[in-house]
This record gives sequence, structure tokens and C-alpha cells, in this order.
Amino acid sequence: MTPQAATPAYRRLSVEERRRQLLDAALSLFAHRAPEDVSLDDVAEAAGVSRPLVYRYFPGGKQQLYEAALGSAADALRQCFDEPRQGPMLARLARALERYLAFVDEHDTGFSALLRGGSVAETSRTTAIVDGVRRAAAEHILSHLGAADAGPRLRMTVRMWITAVEAASLIWLDEGKQPPADELRDWLVDQFVAVLSVTAARDEQTAALLGAFAPDDRD
Amino acid sequence: MTPQAATPAYRRLSVEERRRQLLDAALSLFAHRAPEDVSLDDVAEAAGVSRPLVYRYFPGGKQQLYEAALGSAADALRQCFDEPRQGPMLARLARALERYLAFVDEHDTGFSALLRGGSVAETSRTTAIVDGVRRAAAEHILSHLGAADAGPRLRMTVRMWITAVEAASLIWLDEGKQPPADELRDWLVDQFVAVLSVTAARDEQTAALLGAFAPDDRD
Repeated sequence: MTPQAATPAYRRLSVEERRRQLLDAALSLFAHRAPEDVSLDDVAEAAGVSRPLVYRYFPGGKQQLYEAALGSAADALRQCFDEPRQGPMLARLARALERYLAFVDEHDTGFSALLRGGSVAETSRTTAIVDGVRRAAAEHILSHLGAADAGPRLRMTVRMWITAVEAASLIWLDEGKQPPADELRDWLVDQFVAVLSVTAARDEQTAALLGAFAPDDRD
Repeated sequence: MTPQAATPAYRRLSVEERRRQLLDAALSLFAHRAPEDVSLDDVAEAAGVSRPLVYRYFPGGKQQLYEAALGSAADALRQCFDEPRQGPMLARLARALERYLAFVDEHDTGFSALLRGGSVAETSRTTAIVDGVRRAAAEHILSHLGAADAGPRLRMTVRMWITAVEAASLIWLDEGKQPPADELRDWLVDQFVAVLSVTAARDEQTAALLGAFAPDDRD
């Protein structure tokens, strides 16, 4: 698509639609390249608009666009965690993990560049967005466990497991997405049960929760 | 100490000694403040030298000093992992963790600022230094396990556990260093055994290793 061909189209889009279109173009570029390898010209070309138009919507340039795309990816990730509060607990966790791994698969390079740190586009704002997703994941899990009031040991266990899942995702991308996503998913669910069991030996709240779902209630 | 009082002293130091002295002063400042809250004047004052002298040794200014201090902290961390290859495996792991947690305790704010990311001082070089320590930790563990040739599942398990330990350290600092370091140490060792056991059900190499040390050989 050339900027010329796209010009008539942008007249038909509302401000919000145009913004969304630019963000989607940016997100798909940032998903597969490190931020330093994406230029505003690339974004303009992918969206089929002119560079000045991109600047009109994102006067802060690439950094602003990157942060907006990241915010949009963070929203998509949060949606992965949405899971009806019914049925066996571990089956819910497995489904959320499945959606999460599909997200990682789809946004591989960008996901990896973001979480590895040290990128030129990384700021305290981007770190805060990522931390917000981690916190949301922990709250989702605790809420499904019926432990929104979790004590420090249970909370720490859940947060450690979430970090381990992140590490697994990065290694998984490095290893050419091996083992297959469904095996990785089941392995991570089993690790969750295993670390909760370790904590249960030290923490009554965790022990009570663990009793409430059978370790093999996944199927 | 004032710069005047220190001037005679620096004539007696060799270049290497002076560099070491400046690095030690920087490291102790960076240990307890975020990099953006440390100025070159602070470092000069802490070392009892003039600001131009600091620049003579570190012409790249604060960033260069930060990276050098980080490199020095990374060496200290690597020393935490040095452990004689004798005695029960989990006792070795517990001793290495104990030294690691003492390091985290001593460098609390700097450790936290570094690992949380998004700091102005974070670059691809600082990220590479931190990743180097993570890799060294993984290699130490695999080598103690007699599995320098570890397959992907065992390697992934060890790396995930190391990331979980890092996350635990950060949460531990946030929680006012609770639970006490020795409890956290034992909890982390138990988690290591638990996640290895989960992997053992999927990986023969891990199963064989796990059989080689009793889960309660720590004492």
C-alpha cells in the first residue's frame, strides 16, 4: 500500500479509528522486531499513511508510539487471564496459560526484546506497564483461588511462579518454541502445584487452598 | 573526609589501588541508592578525592563508573556461587543461597534498582552483565549436579528456578526482608527439589539426577 493510495481512506476514519489503525500497524511491527529496528517510516508505510500523519497522532514520535503499542499489548495480555470462575481450578489455569503462550508465540520478537531489558525504548513508564500486567496476573490467580486476601507467603509463591513462567516463555522462544506449547503449558501447571505444595508445608492458608482442588482436576 | 585531607593519601596509591578505591566508594553508594540519586560529587566525597580525579579514572563519567561498579558487584556475586564440590548437594545449594541472600541484604537498594529495570543507567551493557551472572549461576548448579551437558528441559528448569529466586529476592526486599533469610533459603531449596521433581516426570536425565541426592540431605 502506498501513502497516495491510502490518503482517501484516512478521511473516512474517525480520530479513534485512525489512532487504532496506527497502533495496530505499530504493534504488529514491534511484535516482530526490536524497537530500535522499527522506524516511523515503517509504521507509516504499514498503515498506508504519511509520516506527518503518524506524527499528528503521536507527536512524541517513536517512543510515544512504542509506549502506546505496549499499553495495547498489555490490555491484550490482561484479556488472556480472563477466565470464567467455574470448573476445575487447574483447567482454568491451563486455559489462561494456553492463551498466554499463544500471545507469546504471536508477539515473539517484541515480547522478547521488551522482557530482556536494556532496550533503548525501555523507560520507567514501559517498566511500569509490564509490572502492571504481572500484578494483574497475580491478582487474577489469587482471586480464582479465592485468596484475594493472600498472606505474604502465598502471594510470594504466586509472584515467583509468574516470573518463572516469563522466564520459560523467553527460553521457549530461544529454543525455537520447543517443547510444544501444550506440553509447556502442562509442565507449568504442574510446577504451580509443586511450588504451592512446598509453601503449604510452611503456610496454613496455602495448605487450606491446596486441599480445595485436586492436583489432577485438570481434565 | 574532605578533599584537602585526602590529597596526600592519593599520591601514595597506585593507579590500580586508586581505581579500586573509587570503585568501592561508588559501589557502596550505588548499593543503597538508585543510580539517578548518585552524583559524581557524591562519589568524590565518599572516596575523599576531587571530582576531576574521579573523571581522570572514569572519563565516561557516572555511566562508566556505574557499569564498572556493576561489573565489580557481578564478580562478588559470582564468588557467592563458589562452593566446594563435596558433601550433600542440597547443603551446597543452601550455602550458596545463604551467601547470595547476604549479598542481596548488603546491596539492597542498588540490587533492586538494577533488577527492576527502567533505570536511566540501564543499557544493553548493564543487561549483559546481569545476564552473565544468571548464566554463571545456572552453569554452577548444572556443574554441581554433574550435568554440564544438560538437555533443554533440565536447563530450562534450572534457569526458571534462578529467575524465581531473583523475584523472591526483590519481594523479600519489598517486604522488609521477611521471612528471615534462613527460612527463605530453605524454602527456595525445597522449591528447587519440587520443580526438579516435576521435570523428572518428563525427562529421564533429570529423573536420574534426582535419584542421586536424597531430598533431605541438606543437614
